[in-house]
Amino acid sequence: MAKLTKLDDIVSLCKRRGFIFQSSEIYGGLASCYDYGPLGVELKNNVKKAWWKNVVQIRDDVVGLDCSILMHPMVWKASGHADKFADLIAECKKCNTRTRVDHLKDKDADQAAEHTEHVDIDAAQAQSHDLTGKVCPKCGVVGQFTEPMPFKLMFETQMGANIDDSMTMHLRPETAQGIFANFRNVLDTARVKIPFGIAQIGKSFRNEVTTKAFIFRTREFEQAELEFFCEPGTDDEWFEHWKEARFNWYLDHGIKKENLRFREHDADELAHYAKGCVDVEYKFPFGSGDWQELEGVANRTDFDLRQHQRGMRTLNKWYESDGDISKIELADEAEEYFKGPLSYFDDQQKRRYIPYVIEPSAGIDRSALAFLVDAYDEEEVRGETRNLLRFHPALAPVKVAVFPLVKKEGMPEIARNICNDFKKYFNAFYDQKGAIGRRYRRQDEAGTPYCITIDGQTLEDKTVTLRDRDSMEQTRIPTDQLLTQIREKLGM
Amino acid sequence: MAKLTKLDDIVSLCKRRGFIFQSSEIYGGLASCYDYGPLGVELKNNVKKAWWKNVVQIRDDVVGLDCSILMHPMVWKASGHADKFADLIAECKKCNTRTRVDHLKDKDADQAAEHTEHVDIDAAQAQSHDLTGKVCPKCGVVGQFTEPMPFKLMFETQMGANIDDSMTMHLRPETAQGIFANFRNVLDTARVKIPFGIAQIGKSFRNEVTTKAFIFRTREFEQAELEFFCEPGTDDEWFEHWKEARFNWYLDHGIKKENLRFREHDADELAHYAKGCVDVEYKFPFGSGDWQELEGVANRTDFDLRQHQRGMRTLNKWYESDGDISKIELADEAEEYFKGPLSYFDDQQKRRYIPYVIEPSAGIDRSALAFLVDAYDEEEVRGETRNLLRFHPALAPVKVAVFPLVKKEGMPEIARNICNDFKKYFNAFYDQKGAIGRRYRRQDEAGTPYCITIDGQTLEDKTVTLRDRDSMEQTRIPTDQLLTQIREKLGM
Repeated sequence: MAKLTKLDDIVSLCKRRGFIFQSSEIYGGLASCYDYGPLGVELKNNVKKAWWKNVVQIRDDVVGLDCSILMHPMVWKASGHADKFADLIAECKKCNTRTRVDHLKDKDADQAAEHTEHVDIDAAQAQSHDLTGKVCPKCGVVGQFTEPMPFKLMFETQMGANIDDSMTMHLRPETAQGIFANFRNVLDTARVKIPFGIAQIGKSFRNEVTTKAFIFRTREFEQAELEFFCEPGTDDEWFEHWKEARFNWYLDHGIKKENLRFREHDADELAHYAKGCVDVEYKFPFGSGDWQELEGVANRTDFDLRQHQRGMRTLNKWYESDGDISKIELADEAEEYFKGPLSYFDDQQKRRYIPYVIEPSAGIDRSALAFLVDAYDEEEVRGETRNLLRFHPALAPVKVAVFPLVKKEGMPEIARNICNDFKKYFNAFYDQKGAIGRRYRRQDEAGTPYCITIDGQTLEDKTVTLRDRDSMEQTRIPTDQLLTQIREKLGM
Repeated sequence: MAKLTKLDDIVSLCKRRGFIFQSSEIYGGLASCYDYGPLGVELKNNVKKAWWKNVVQIRDDVVGLDCSILMHPMVWKASGHADKFADLIAECKKCNTRTRVDHLKDKDADQAAEHTEHVDIDAAQAQSHDLTGKVCPKCGVVGQFTEPMPFKLMFETQMGANIDDSMTMHLRPETAQGIFANFRNVLDTARVKIPFGIAQIGKSFRNEVTTKAFIFRTREFEQAELEFFCEPGTDDEWFEHWKEARFNWYLDHGIKKENLRFREHDADELAHYAKGCVDVEYKFPFGSGDWQELEGVANRTDFDLRQHQRGMRTLNKWYESDGDISKIELADEAEEYFKGPLSYFDDQQKRRYIPYVIEPSAGIDRSALAFLVDAYDEEEVRGETRNLLRFHPALAPVKVAVFPLVKKEGMPEIARNICNDFKKYFNAFYDQKGAIGRRYRRQDEAGTPYCITIDGQTLEDKTVTLRDRDSMEQTRIPTDQLLTQIREKLGM
């Protein structure tokens, strides 16, 4: 069974096998940014493909989108991020370290009640915070904090060379708003009818106060988000649909059931616009079991589309604002917004409304790590430890490895040809170095589901050995059926 | 034949069919950032997959990588970008508009000699610039410019909440440096031997002074870059290999030969470190033919790896610099760097060297647009104009559309089942609305290579009609051979 009992084991596994490296390692590393190595990029791309296939490709009611990371400042004004996307922090008067108030530990406590996600800043500011018993995580001094203050989480940058066209911009903290901003465009061009969804995968950025070990909370990360638009009144039903669909997606791709759970958000965690929210959590195997969010499924109601209708009505104020977005006040809600460009006309019911939105929002990096950790296994085989990654075939970085048993008698040529044939359809790896047992082990460690060996018998009867990663069973297959059988096994 | 004679025609085609929208359109649009709609995201993803398949998957000598956009500031110090990635601009004294000096037009000229890419800032500053006859593109005043000055092109942002861990960061202006920074990591984990390459696809950002119409020069864009490491002395050979390989990739994916050409860089265009550079250009069909760069293939020599060895030796100065990178001076080159961590030990020759690098660097956005424009066609069919996109099957957003001829007699059910079967392997689209001719036309306009129609005969003999987009020929195929035959035609 798995022997990953410390976070360090996972970090070291990821590094050793070329899955994940810390960014800029040659310069001492950059905290909270990570790079995917040769095996890691294939795993991550496969996770993205599997998500896209499940959420977009196989469905009739979801289309895709890919928006820019830089968006108009008014997007963030309307969404509320410009004013409200912040964490409440306090600064230690002794050492000046800033810490999220909700992450400060009591003097006697082992662990802070650490919410994974951000809490509502308005709600947090409205509460009274007694920090007299809290410890500074840096210098250990107790109760010496400044008054709590908001710290904005969006990365800021300047765009444009000229004073009159230069703007303060933000890196998107979520991909969702790009979808809302394009709701009308999609309605006008894609022949969709409610209920339907728009899906997007892409990078987002948050200037986290506290970054968390490894890739659990990073400042640059990749999201896979779906905004599913439905008629108000049908939202609870769709919420249940997506909750179940997304949970099953993890199970269908190999996550063990005992390591996956739902966690309903408490009322005080819910964003002010959300009607309901549930997290899909994975139990990472270190310590006493560390449950981490992989994905949140939220009922965002009609909040975002309504906000953007207010934003569009406020555009004149943007032109007068000199780019200072904090000065702008959003137009009030008005009855006619329900007839605005972000509303939807229902042909059958002959009525216009602003759709409700169910949002499954997954973290690609965390999911990739969960798939990696869950696939990790160690077992005793004839007195030796076999390390392997039991990846689902769709996620495995390499699908098949091809070996000539020995480097003679034409075996390498046959193996090369078979491998090149495979490569037209999926990742295959040719290896002729070392004892065959060692070559199998190397592929076990990379999570390759199948190995093909060309041996003496191949030359006689044109069959090859197919070896299964998980069972280590070997069967002989005729060369001319190889590609078809392998593709069937892989489902691709 | 194609009737796209103005850039506006292309912009309108892209918008109308849901390929490309301007970012943040509901807020008046954000200059030089673009969003991909439902068909566009599939096209763009297919271009990325086709590149990855050709450059990584089918080869034995290239591995992939996916680095973070935010990297340690020393990466940009060592690469030269922090100090030198700038355009020389002059400001109009009348209206304060800043323009790239190399883009300023002469009073009597129709067009400026506009280099697509950036010129070497050292070389540009060393030249004398006579601006007396140049016109301000904004207000039209002649010869009223400030002295030329450098304008830095990297987007800047702040990371971290605390004074002691907060840093001035830059959004990467190219993906290449993430590859160089991981050269050692890949050597240590991926069992590669020189010659080999590391490939990456991802977003880059440049705060361009002048953005160019539509997606030709944008501030946020996606690159597909390969750094191919080889032994010095073999670099010319590999340069030729990649020049040819990359040119053929465009042809193999449907670009017409007469619309593709090489353009060798003039000596004054070459970056100081480059030994040679050639652009692959596409002839866009507007005006009198507008040749635009799709990809550059450069011989970067051992410049980058040597620079990063200097950078690593300079790391102590970074810690003393208080984050002000401009203060830092890179360590001199020293003989021992050739034995440093970014050098390579050749087992067979028993010698150590710093590899040379051949870099094919493609623009995914521009390529996607070139594929779209090249595929566009109009033809007369029985007195009517047929608009179609003759996409290569690998690039087509939807591979097959499935129609029941009429909405009765079980045809919709059969069609649905066939479509759902397809969707396990590729994008398929079910459509039962409108006359069959109109449904064909809609798919022609989306570039769907094949349409399948279920009709009365299907109920009798279990065959369906397969209609080819390009020839409009129709053949009958038994249902049980459909998936196999279609996958063969699609090569997937």
